[in-house]
Amino acid sequence: MADGPRPPRMRWWGWGDEAEPPALPAHALGFLRENIGLEPAPRAPVALGHVRIPPCALGETVLSELRTIAGTHGVGVGHRDRVEHAAGKGYPDLVLLREGRPDGAPDAVVWPSSHAQVRALLELCARRSIAVVPFGGGTSVVGGIAPVRGAHSAVISLDMGRMRSVVSLDRDSRTVSVQAGMRAPALEEHLAGLGLTLGHYPQSFEYVSLGGCAATRSAGQASTGYGAIADMVLGMRLAAPRADIDLPAMPASAAGPSLREMIVGSEGVLGVITDVHLRVRDAPGASTYEGVFFEDFHAGAQAFRVLAQEHALPDVARLSDESETRLSLALAGGGGVKGRLGRAYIGLRGMGSGVLAIVGFEGSEEAVGVRRWRTMSLLRANGALPVGESPGRAWLAGRFHAPYLRDDLLTQGVMVETLETATRWSNVQSLHRAVGDAIAGTLGAGGTPALVMCHISHVYETGCSLYFTFIARQRPGEEIEQWREVKGAACDAIVDGGGTITHHHAIGRDHRAWMEREVGAAGVDALRALKGELDPDGIMNPGKLLALTP
Amino acid sequence: MADGPRPPRMRWWGWGDEAEPPALPAHALGFLRENIGLEPAPRAPVALGHVRIPPCALGETVLSELRTIAGTHGVGVGHRDRVEHAAGKGYPDLVLLREGRPDGAPDAVVWPSSHAQVRALLELCARRSIAVVPFGGGTSVVGGIAPVRGAHSAVISLDMGRMRSVVSLDRDSRTVSVQAGMRAPALEEHLAGLGLTLGHYPQSFEYVSLGGCAATRSAGQASTGYGAIADMVLGMRLAAPRADIDLPAMPASAAGPSLREMIVGSEGVLGVITDVHLRVRDAPGASTYEGVFFEDFHAGAQAFRVLAQEHALPDVARLSDESETRLSLALAGGGGVKGRLGRAYIGLRGMGSGVLAIVGFEGSEEAVGVRRWRTMSLLRANGALPVGESPGRAWLAGRFHAPYLRDDLLTQGVMVETLETATRWSNVQSLHRAVGDAIAGTLGAGGTPALVMCHISHVYETGCSLYFTFIARQRPGEEIEQWREVKGAACDAIVDGGGTITHHHAIGRDHRAWMEREVGAAGVDALRALKGELDPDGIMNPGKLLALTP
Repeated sequence: MADGPRPPRMRWWGWGDEAEPPALPAHALGFLRENIGLEPAPRAPVALGHVRIPPCALGETVLSELRTIAGTHGVGVGHRDRVEHAAGKGYPDLVLLREGRPDGAPDAVVWPSSHAQVRALLELCARRSIAVVPFGGGTSVVGGIAPVRGAHSAVISLDMGRMRSVVSLDRDSRTVSVQAGMRAPALEEHLAGLGLTLGHYPQSFEYVSLGGCAATRSAGQASTGYGAIADMVLGMRLAAPRADIDLPAMPASAAGPSLREMIVGSEGVLGVITDVHLRVRDAPGASTYEGVFFEDFHAGAQAFRVLAQEHALPDVARLSDESETRLSLALAGGGGVKGRLGRAYIGLRGMGSGVLAIVGFEGSEEAVGVRRWRTMSLLRANGALPVGESPGRAWLAGRFHAPYLRDDLLTQGVMVETLETATRWSNVQSLHRAVGDAIAGTLGAGGTPALVMCHISHVYETGCSLYFTFIARQRPGEEIEQWREVKGAACDAIVDGGGTITHHHAIGRDHRAWMEREVGAAGVDALRALKGELDPDGIMNPGKLLALTP
Repeated sequence: MADGPRPPRMRWWGWGDEAEPPALPAHALGFLRENIGLEPAPRAPVALGHVRIPPCALGETVLSELRTIAGTHGVGVGHRDRVEHAAGKGYPDLVLLREGRPDGAPDAVVWPSSHAQVRALLELCARRSIAVVPFGGGTSVVGGIAPVRGAHSAVISLDMGRMRSVVSLDRDSRTVSVQAGMRAPALEEHLAGLGLTLGHYPQSFEYVSLGGCAATRSAGQASTGYGAIADMVLGMRLAAPRADIDLPAMPASAAGPSLREMIVGSEGVLGVITDVHLRVRDAPGASTYEGVFFEDFHAGAQAFRVLAQEHALPDVARLSDESETRLSLALAGGGGVKGRLGRAYIGLRGMGSGVLAIVGFEGSEEAVGVRRWRTMSLLRANGALPVGESPGRAWLAGRFHAPYLRDDLLTQGVMVETLETATRWSNVQSLHRAVGDAIAGTLGAGGTPALVMCHISHVYETGCSLYFTFIARQRPGEEIEQWREVKGAACDAIVDGGGTITHHHAIGRDHRAWMEREVGAAGVDALRALKGELDPDGIMNPGKLLALTP
């Protein structure tokens, strides 16, 4: 338990605050029953006390050494602390947590309150052969915080939650330095008071830490306008077991290979990011988010490509495919989306399948006006049918909503999973089809037909992301096997199809094998050499990014 | 000698074609005589035959092994070939070359014609303990291609000049793949035929190779619009002694630390880049470059900062300080710049010192019109006095001119050198002063008072580059000592003053010590570990980026 006030606590078995009401509307249940079938009775998570975790492997000597560094209240070995740090928020994590059988747990949770404490902890752990799993917001969906000890005697979770202050602000340069444990909402609140914003809004926004975002190469929903976290991180401080690396905030540099870009995305395997230096922007005075329809996904993607290559992109650019459009309109139910939008959709279906896009602009009123005018003209010239602001408002209201829905779906015995990639424009349609077919084919063959949806949400001149969501009945008692089959088939389809194994979910434990196929054995060996130098005893986040060495 | 036609050959002792007429106008000589003093008689370079280089250290066995791989015409041991590959185009390189005493020479020059040949050459060199210096355009100004053999028995220059084809083009995705030896002008010519452009225009444009640009983190004069080379390189193929790393062109990825960003800027110490996958854009249908005056450098920098933070930057953004403005107006002489511009300048000097900026826009006619309107409004609101297109035209006409002038200045016994950095906006004025003072102070104390000028030419939301040019009389017989003193003082001022040791000239041999101060010993050790993995025998470009190990 930490001694200062903690950042918001999440349900140990799912997403969001414990008091959060169910998110799934009744008519959605009907839709699911019709389309994929539902279990007869809902399945609630077990009680916290019934979660089975192994006994703490740390002796009193080591625990007292940990307490000497982080303080008595900076070390937790209680059941709840350990369960809360036993897994991330991926689908298999939640399946196992809800059943009360997570895949291990850290032997202790340690909350350092300074860079010096982090350094002392790493040196102690190297000496004592204890694996260290850095823990930011705990939202990994790729097994990035699984408590793997590898060849070590124990594993601790290093929770950065007490290191959550703004260190300094350089207003002229629009840069801010924060401790790595600072949560994104807290930073946005601080910046808002100064008329500034970071503009980083991943779906997990409500819980993520800035250090975690940097360590996992996160990208937010407005990345098209604000850039991904790698564009925002200008420097950082890394505490590695061997030594510190301190990279000041530089607007640009040609001083050799980018050490900054080696630490961004390093997922805790090189060391612990303790400070992050970030670019900020003026808070937008105006914003608008609106909907446009296209005849089909191909037409919408072509239009987005034109926007990117004409430098006319909005800040939020989001294009659903046919099945995601269909599902979101069905689930919107009696909301504001229905009337005019429904008519436009039905009208459009006369000429094709119809897909919905959201385009959003943020900035000064004048800039938003000028940019919006040019973008909407280009969109219309490329087949878009504007349908006003109600889909934009609906998207904005629900932008962080999906993980809450997932909890309710799990209760209903429904598997819901997401995975994502990016590829060049010339390959978008082919990869969209290949991955969709792999998911639908695998789940269909297993007797649990799936709804597979996709959207584009990060757009570049040379290509875009593809984000897949799929829903199917769980195979009771075989949930993990079912997941492993479909995840493997989808990842094969991504890498064989010329996509990157992840656009913004990171590698963690789950994508390791496919990263090797993407960057090759020599690429993996290069990363391993880097790790060998900074973490010679291999205590940092074993088994993530790089396979455990025998 | 290579068997195919070669890329354009440069003067072995300087820049440009041998037939190039002198570039320095007569009135400039007068200006220099008045301001810094001139030697009584010009000093021409020695004849090629008088250049002293050590005998070739390679025996017939190895030479025949090299010829087996690269072909008889792919291996050169002649005097001219070796002298042409003996040094880059930095100031000390040219001083020594002109005196006929370069700091060594490669024992042979090898021109591979395929990735497979590069791989075979690296394996042979590792086996035979021969150092390998990758050679692209040969334009390094930081000793990046100095023929250092380190602990090895010999050193070869690996000239990529025969590997200069376009490999493939993906028009929809706006990507092109080229062999690394392709020169920038050849690629632009190829792309122009397709209505495309890369948009990478470093001052060395006429000679640089794309592989060399990637290896040195080059940034072009229009980087504010098109980005630096790191923004353009989407993937590449690296032949390292240990293995190949093959990174396909991806618009974005979160697959761990960026291997791409480890190879960009690796300066030949990890391996040889053989293919580069680049983002391209539509060739601009319209362009305009124009001049604006500001009261002083501070006011101009503030205005550029506003443009960057309001997302209203032009594609070319260039701001001279007071002394650069003064010198360029003086040197423009009878050109078109004088009349209206001179009057504006003199008028402005009534209220301050007066500095000139160039802003350039490229794109479709409509986009240029819209962007220019907004940018010029913001500039006027921030104190700019627009003075029309003649300064823009003059800049455009002379944008690749400086290295030609340098040759003439060297002939006149004048030292002319440039160095550059980048820093945050809040630090620009202080760093500008500190570096300028260090240069002027050091040269003044040595009895050779200097003209020191500076401009901003790469602009970011959080800061900008600072590019210094300085001119002073040479200290005859002590040219290198004189250079070493002023270079050292300037680099100390940069790093102590919070700048990066290089914004776009790279590290090479000359910036090594300061890079270590910038990224720390642990940062350097991390790079060394990477090199140890990919180049276990240390044959790749010894002594560049990283100090030789004993």
